[in-house]
Amino acid sequence: MPAYKAPVEDTLFLLNDVFQFQRYNNLPGFAEATPDLVEAVLGEGARLCEEVLQPLNRSGDLEGCTRKPDGTVTTPKGFKAAYEAFAGGGWIGLALDPEYGGQGLPYTLGAIMNEYASSANMAFAMYPGLTMGAMAALNVHGSDAQKRTYLPKMAEGAWSGTMNLTEPHCGTDLGLIKTKAVPQGDGSYAITGTKIFISAGEQDITENIVHLVLARIEGAPAGTKGISLFVVPRNEIAADGSVGANNKVTCGSIEHKMGIHGNATCVMNYDGARGWLVGEENRGLAAMFVMMNEARLGVAIQGLAQSEVAYQNAVAYAKDRLQGRALTGPKEPGKPADPLFVHPDVRRTLMSIKAFNEAARAFVIWNALKSDVAHRSADAAERQAADDQLGLMTPVLKGVLTDVGFDNAVKAQQIFGGHGYIAEHGMEQFVRDARIAMIYEGANGVQAMDLVGRKLGRDGGRAIMAFFNEVGGFVKANEGDAALKPLLGPLAASLGHLQQATMWFMNNALARPDNAGAGADDYMHLLGLVSLGYMWALMAKAAQEKLTAGGDERLAAKLVTARFFMERSLPETAAHLARITAGADTTMALEPELF
Amino acid sequence: MPAYKAPVEDTLFLLNDVFQFQRYNNLPGFAEATPDLVEAVLGEGARLCEEVLQPLNRSGDLEGCTRKPDGTVTTPKGFKAAYEAFAGGGWIGLALDPEYGGQGLPYTLGAIMNEYASSANMAFAMYPGLTMGAMAALNVHGSDAQKRTYLPKMAEGAWSGTMNLTEPHCGTDLGLIKTKAVPQGDGSYAITGTKIFISAGEQDITENIVHLVLARIEGAPAGTKGISLFVVPRNEIAADGSVGANNKVTCGSIEHKMGIHGNATCVMNYDGARGWLVGEENRGLAAMFVMMNEARLGVAIQGLAQSEVAYQNAVAYAKDRLQGRALTGPKEPGKPADPLFVHPDVRRTLMSIKAFNEAARAFVIWNALKSDVAHRSADAAERQAADDQLGLMTPVLKGVLTDVGFDNAVKAQQIFGGHGYIAEHGMEQFVRDARIAMIYEGANGVQAMDLVGRKLGRDGGRAIMAFFNEVGGFVKANEGDAALKPLLGPLAASLGHLQQATMWFMNNALARPDNAGAGADDYMHLLGLVSLGYMWALMAKAAQEKLTAGGDERLAAKLVTARFFMERSLPETAAHLARITAGADTTMALEPELF
Repeated sequence: MPAYKAPVEDTLFLLNDVFQFQRYNNLPGFAEATPDLVEAVLGEGARLCEEVLQPLNRSGDLEGCTRKPDGTVTTPKGFKAAYEAFAGGGWIGLALDPEYGGQGLPYTLGAIMNEYASSANMAFAMYPGLTMGAMAALNVHGSDAQKRTYLPKMAEGAWSGTMNLTEPHCGTDLGLIKTKAVPQGDGSYAITGTKIFISAGEQDITENIVHLVLARIEGAPAGTKGISLFVVPRNEIAADGSVGANNKVTCGSIEHKMGIHGNATCVMNYDGARGWLVGEENRGLAAMFVMMNEARLGVAIQGLAQSEVAYQNAVAYAKDRLQGRALTGPKEPGKPADPLFVHPDVRRTLMSIKAFNEAARAFVIWNALKSDVAHRSADAAERQAADDQLGLMTPVLKGVLTDVGFDNAVKAQQIFGGHGYIAEHGMEQFVRDARIAMIYEGANGVQAMDLVGRKLGRDGGRAIMAFFNEVGGFVKANEGDAALKPLLGPLAASLGHLQQATMWFMNNALARPDNAGAGADDYMHLLGLVSLGYMWALMAKAAQEKLTAGGDERLAAKLVTARFFMERSLPETAAHLARITAGADTTMALEPELF
Repeated sequence: MPAYKAPVEDTLFLLNDVFQFQRYNNLPGFAEATPDLVEAVLGEGARLCEEVLQPLNRSGDLEGCTRKPDGTVTTPKGFKAAYEAFAGGGWIGLALDPEYGGQGLPYTLGAIMNEYASSANMAFAMYPGLTMGAMAALNVHGSDAQKRTYLPKMAEGAWSGTMNLTEPHCGTDLGLIKTKAVPQGDGSYAITGTKIFISAGEQDITENIVHLVLARIEGAPAGTKGISLFVVPRNEIAADGSVGANNKVTCGSIEHKMGIHGNATCVMNYDGARGWLVGEENRGLAAMFVMMNEARLGVAIQGLAQSEVAYQNAVAYAKDRLQGRALTGPKEPGKPADPLFVHPDVRRTLMSIKAFNEAARAFVIWNALKSDVAHRSADAAERQAADDQLGLMTPVLKGVLTDVGFDNAVKAQQIFGGHGYIAEHGMEQFVRDARIAMIYEGANGVQAMDLVGRKLGRDGGRAIMAFFNEVGGFVKANEGDAALKPLLGPLAASLGHLQQATMWFMNNALARPDNAGAGADDYMHLLGLVSLGYMWALMAKAAQEKLTAGGDERLAAKLVTARFFMERSLPETAAHLARITAGADTTMALEPELF
């Protein structure tokens, strides 16, 4: 049976030593988050994930969700109680304004808990995750009355949230949405249409479900400029907040899918359901983007989370399973064979996942802190700079962490040989679950286009230039540091590849947009590698400083792993650059019938 | 519902134009295989795969196999009839000596049919595939009496074959095998032990099952030098060849696994079952290697096959699904959106799979022909050279085609967005099925070690030197060819990387074997890329010659796809070289407790 231990120690190293969390004391909610409190909070969260959520992961996969003929959906045994424990621990309202029942703590802590929960039980973690995403959208775009109606109930775990975008004929291209909203004269709208792929669309966990729905008000302009956002509670809500009769929204069926079986993926039928406008008419996409951006970071974290839990189980198996002998002679001559762990190819695999996970965790926290700054800083310039970075890095986080996270789950499964293919060890579930993260919240190809087509050139390339300056500045400032020397050369070379690729797009993509499209995926991964390399440089510097002050071998391991990353992952940046500068000619040359 | 069309036209281009199949006329069985016959045979095979096997692929996945309390196993509906059709078409005995009921045709044609059948229904194709592997082992190592007893029945489809190697405590490390064989004094042995992961170990398709079993004769030396191979029919066989009572071998359970649900993966319990020695005592591993080498090529083909069928379905979806607009302006302004196919990132994905599939198909055929030469040529030097290449390339075929084949199934699934994650479209089944090919018949890390640790240095590196000479010679001989020029530069550069990596191992791995182990996977993929690049050079030359003589746009497409491969896949060889020459230091530095 698979196991999981939340990497609290590694997280604290990042918060305290690498990113110096206490520097953010001036932001609302951060002063309360003292080092002791943070350690206690994360320890509490870790326990919940390890003891409550993880034991339900495999049973939830086996049992799955069931839709009954009346449209109700049964979730796996234990999920309801786990949700109550999760909400009871204050996790759903962690970052929410206390005015609406939240704790007002840093979002960054919520992102960390999301990693732990998604490692422990990704299908489960989606229920509170979607609720928090819906809360974020209501918090930014909802009226005060809407916030008072929904947010406290959602934070306490009584009601959940969902997002309803996709329709049978459109996913990425939301301009094609057909769901209709007809004003009823009483401030409400009658919503009619079919939404598909609605995660957690129906369940037996909470007493009400708050659907956020994209629809087109009668007479609205065509395309994305005619889409509005509505809040549609599954059950009518009385003035006193109590839950009443069913609204006209039902789950028509649930999908049979590759993974995340513990989370119901629903076809939702809206048949004149009562809904209320959130934010302005025809500005629904902008409102939904608040939810989607937070959701994209959440999905990025799922990629890391599955990579981490798969890694932990592969490490345990590699230490336990006896097979073959070390190339350098028997390591355990008293046993019939050495553990798998002695084999360089096994070690290479584990090191490559480890080097990714630790850097990806840093990358998540670095950006989550930017989110806190962007939302909470009193300094407009600081907010802007943080928002610039977050905008630039959101597609990179989503695309790279889920692509590599999935690859890593596959690599970790491989360590088990044939046993990895068998359901009982749980490794194949990690692969199946991790797979969806590359697809939902904008398929990774769409993330790459968002990066290259929109984020890169926005405001004259301000965000990417700031990143170049930050990484280049770090390299320059630490040139004389002997411990960092073996790391900075490769990092600088990869930064150079990134700069060349950026320049190539400037010179070649404006006149021929297909050149941007054909290179987008490579550019996303190139920027991801440089970002992760930069994270390793920051971690190595912090580890080295602590080591000098008398640290343990865990810190020395950071320096080794940093070098491994530079030697083994960064060589890929030259290949990305070569593919980008090859342009779109051969990609676009062949007519459809030649495929 | 997924569909499949066997790529007969592409196969014929390879056989006739690239590899000039008719040149092999001097080999037994080849003279009969005239171009017309080959085309007819492949057309017949294609029809069988498209019309009989493919329609059972998804139903077989959904239905799976069931073990009843008496140990019998029910296979999915239609599999028995399909097996009869497959055997009835002469496919099982295709390459077998007519003396034992075969047709004596080239093995190469069987390899091609294996691709088609594995694309159409991989779980099904394993039943005849394992039978053919067992036949190969019996054919080489069995006594004449054994051959007469088993081969004709297996060829006609009445009996099937399996291979029994793995035990609960050992897979790769066969020296640990515990299954015992006790001589009974009548020429038979009593076999006792437990084997796991036995594909097709029990089924309701054939009237008998011929198990080939590795076991240890009482008193045999420890380790791999004390293992013998036995043939253990599930049912006793009377002197007249009729099938009698059950032997003492039963299926104890079947595994719940990620994919290939239509093929039962069995725990087999041998409880004093009657078996007969195949070949010499204690030489079982060598005998089994005949089966494993053929099986490894078969598994390599499965990687290509899943890549091909996933690709075909992704192409169809990309042409059909309307989503978004081309970056260069609407391509189908009359429709609400353009097809996915217009997007460069979609096209890049499809081109990369296409470029791999066509080269991988060539790589398979090139090596299958070497297998025919190695087994059938009258010229000892020719046999030796072919055997050298096949030995070198078998781990590359297995490791690279299954790694990339799986990645491609994932990429093709990605084209479908959320619909790719839903079972109904069949894309997630391709991914689940393709995954096993990276694991069984020697996990790909084991293939990499076989390549670097054994095949590379064998006979003073004769095989790899011959490959360098062949590719280098081709580049030199075609320097002046304008059409090939854009291809040969990148190919020569990648060949250079391969030569440098080989040299680096010579200088650094003898003294420190971990350097070989840490670089093995990269070397395998580096050699794979150069091989596929060479295939593209050969295909481009053949296409160019035919074009000059007045060919169609399908030939022009070969030249474009060849360039795409050189531009987009070969840049990876530099990254592989960089990782190899980084050595094992950081890979092996950390103590187990730091993972």
